[in-house]
This record gives sequence, C-alpha cells and structure tokens, in this order.
Amino acid sequence: MNQQELEVLRSKIDGLNLEILRLINERAEVVEQIGKIKEKQGVNRYDPLRERHMLDLLKEHNNGPLNQMTVDFIFKQIFKTALKQLEAEKKKELLV
Amino acid sequence: MNQQELEVLRSKIDGLNLEILRLINERAEVVEQIGKIKEKQGVNRYDPLRERHMLDLLKEHNNGPLNQMTVDFIFKQIFKTALKQLEAEKKKELLV
Repeated sequence: MNQQELEVLRSKIDGLNLEILRLINERAEVVEQIGKIKEKQGVNRYDPLRERHMLDLLKEHNNGPLNQMTVDFIFKQIFKTALKQLEAEKKKELLV
Repeated sequence: MNQQELEVLRSKIDGLNLEILRLINERAEVVEQIGKIKEKQGVNRYDPLRERHMLDLLKEHNNGPLNQMTVDFIFKQIFKTALKQLEAEKKKELLV
C-alpha cells in the first residue's frame, strides 16, 4: 500500500520537475532578450538592485513550506547559472 | 523604447519567478509526504538512484536554452536544499 502511494507521489514530483524545467528555460529565454537590450544600451547584465527586487517579491509571495533562506538560495542559483551560461555562449560567439 | 521593452520583459521574469516559487513549494510538500512514508518504512530519505532517474528524465525533456549542465546544477540545488530544510525541521521536532 505504502509503496503504491510512494509511486504516485514520485510521479507527481516528476511532473512538477518537468514544469519547473519548462519555466526555467522560458525564464532563460527572457533573460537572453534582456541581455540583448542591455548590450545595446551598453550596461552590465548583472544588476544587484534588480536581483534584490526579485528576491523581495518572492519573499512577499512565499507561503512555504520552503522558508525564505531556501527560496533565496535556490533563486540565486537560478539567477547566477542562467547568466553564466549566457555569458559563456556570448564569449564563444566572439571567439568564432 | 528599449527601456519600455525592458520593463515588459522584467515583469515577465517576475511572473515566471512566482510560478517557479509556487512549483518548488508544491514540490516540497510532496517531498514531505514522501519523507513520512519512507520514515514508516524505515528507509533513508536520500536515494541516489531516484535522483539519477529524475535527472535523466529532465535530460530527455530539456529543449534549452539552458544546457544540461545548468539544468542538473539547478535541480541538484533544489533537491538538496528542500531535503536539508525538511531534515532540520524534523530535528527541531525531535528536540521539542
């Protein structure tokens, strides 16, 4: 019985993971578009004030069970890695 | 013009962030339920085979722009921090 229940919960997790995957990729696409505009404007991609704003908004809307420390940590990783990958690709383009 | 476009893209990011927040919290709730079942079964919460399965499934479904290294990294953080917080809370319960 418990094993069956476990399988149901695991397939829920698999479904949630795929939804999160879709959203972080969609997010990366928008980050890419923002990067192009900022490039034209000649400003830096990384903007600590904007990051603070995003984290504050998440804090306002966080109803748990994940606490704010966990949410901040996960999102900082999402912010950082997306930007890092995009910058690495940009560098490659410049080297070609 | 570009500034206005930037604002539109930023509000898109804000919306995506909130959707991701909702999903990682929903995910944490399911992880919590799984933890309770595993506890009854007397098995460890952390299951490297299950983690491998989840990462493989994400790989199969990843259409970018984030590459697999980035996706793996972000999800490993999500897996680890959710588990860590739940375990810390469990410890607190035991200490009360």
